[in-house]
Amino acid sequence: MCAEKSVLNAVLPAICRSQIEGNLPEAIEPLWYDTPEQMVDLAPRADIGWFDQQDKQPMIAAIRLARDLKWLNTAIAGLDFIPEDLLRRDGLIITNGAGISSFAVAEFAVMGMLNIAKGYRQIVQAQDRHEWLHYAAGTRELSGSRALLLGYGAIGKALERMLGGFGVECVPVRRSAASGALGPDEWQARLSEFDWVIAAVPSTPETAGMIGDKELRAMGSEAVLVNIARGDVVDQAALVDALTEKRIGGAFLDVTSPEPLPEDHPLWSLENAHISMHLSALSQNSMFDRAAQRFCDNAHRFCAGDDLVARYDPQRGY
Amino acid sequence: MCAEKSVLNAVLPAICRSQIEGNLPEAIEPLWYDTPEQMVDLAPRADIGWFDQQDKQPMIAAIRLARDLKWLNTAIAGLDFIPEDLLRRDGLIITNGAGISSFAVAEFAVMGMLNIAKGYRQIVQAQDRHEWLHYAAGTRELSGSRALLLGYGAIGKALERMLGGFGVECVPVRRSAASGALGPDEWQARLSEFDWVIAAVPSTPETAGMIGDKELRAMGSEAVLVNIARGDVVDQAALVDALTEKRIGGAFLDVTSPEPLPEDHPLWSLENAHISMHLSALSQNSMFDRAAQRFCDNAHRFCAGDDLVARYDPQRGY
Repeated sequence: MCAEKSVLNAVLPAICRSQIEGNLPEAIEPLWYDTPEQMVDLAPRADIGWFDQQDKQPMIAAIRLARDLKWLNTAIAGLDFIPEDLLRRDGLIITNGAGISSFAVAEFAVMGMLNIAKGYRQIVQAQDRHEWLHYAAGTRELSGSRALLLGYGAIGKALERMLGGFGVECVPVRRSAASGALGPDEWQARLSEFDWVIAAVPSTPETAGMIGDKELRAMGSEAVLVNIARGDVVDQAALVDALTEKRIGGAFLDVTSPEPLPEDHPLWSLENAHISMHLSALSQNSMFDRAAQRFCDNAHRFCAGDDLVARYDPQRGY
Repeated sequence: MCAEKSVLNAVLPAICRSQIEGNLPEAIEPLWYDTPEQMVDLAPRADIGWFDQQDKQPMIAAIRLARDLKWLNTAIAGLDFIPEDLLRRDGLIITNGAGISSFAVAEFAVMGMLNIAKGYRQIVQAQDRHEWLHYAAGTRELSGSRALLLGYGAIGKALERMLGGFGVECVPVRRSAASGALGPDEWQARLSEFDWVIAAVPSTPETAGMIGDKELRAMGSEAVLVNIARGDVVDQAALVDALTEKRIGGAFLDVTSPEPLPEDHPLWSLENAHISMHLSALSQNSMFDRAAQRFCDNAHRFCAGDDLVARYDPQRGY
């Protein structure tokens, strides 16, 4: 790949400069940006681009302006916010952040489960009032409970390992039948067996609405839904009904529809709904290290004409 | 033991009746109580007594009245609230709750660590305001961090297994040197190496004040103290100073001195102090099951003259 042109311009975030500089193949010339404006200005020169921004508009603008782009890299996992025509541009290789934040997201999900199990929100509120509670706010144990893992990618596997340490039996849902796993049409009939139903699937047309009214009604009355995937994986109106009528034990929602959740949305006030504002992947300190290291590894693969790690397939949507 | 007398009276909590009835040796006659008053009334007839109460006064009264007591059982781990003369009565066998609540306490401690790592208290407070946070309230990961385990009993071992699933390296402190462990005089000099210092020791004269000003000053500026042992294990005045001056990262305190903590105590208001009101062992649903099962097992051992499980030594204090 590198041979086609003597030098390839890579437009890269300066925030990762210290981890990247000196670790790239000679044929790649880094062009560093500090601000979204600098990024958009440099984009037309990019053969390789890493355009991550909190605000998605300059990201999309940069991809559109980078007409010579051969490889788009990002530390973000779900790319459904990028217009299809840009994702499917002829010959464009895309690598995403799949797996980079998986530990952070899985840790966050376990935290949510423990908080619901022990009623920790009430403990926080009692401390705010300087009040010593004399009775447990929650009396569940993770130990001996059962979790259904919808999604068995890097996050699902990290969850399985973490929850295993607590003695939680994890049953993953997989595309193809495998020992100890449920198939894509099997889990619905087994929902009542689980204390925790954890959505960690990618956001695709297939997964949209996969937890609807029927699935919520099939869950046990004490069971908790954990959504660390995307808001649209759950039928949110049906979830509000299930929580209001206390048909399920609770929900830990890192993601909602829409985001941000409007101030007057009923989910905010339900005592069995726990909203964590899509902070799971942001609540970490090593994302840039991991992302920069993967980018450098991939840069060498790119120049050698090898397959890249975490290649994103616009057809599958992950 | 059972042979000495044809029938031994066991004064037992009716809350465990369904788990115990039918599982005792024939020589043991259960006398069930529902209320503390019934318990105190039955106590003088007890050869075997299980006198657990939230309020410790009727417990102590019952032990004092049970002059024929041969075996005192409890699901409580720390018995320092019982007067010495009762604990050391000639020929009295005591079994305590060591290990029965260890999973619940360890789960609670991991919850506290995750909450501090991710700044979950701020997330709870934001939800109360219906406010969507756009930036992480905490950016730590358990993955790759290091924990010093002061105390390597059932709770310490449960913590090691749970934290292992997150990739936390746990270093226990043990009485005798062992591979991967620190000795009782070694850990103080190594405090700066740990992200988490976890106190899970029994409350004895030896452990009182083991975390004092010197130890707090030796901890790293981001390190977090987790106390799930007893309030007196930590010099609380020195801890308030360390937290106020932000010399350490924070403290998760399931236990304090005194309990309840007075309403005007400075710990309530420190943003880096997290108070959980000694709820760790109560935040579970299987304590009675586990305690009842152990009592029945021990009853058979008692009648066979075998050693009992979880024998309490008043000399050691655990």
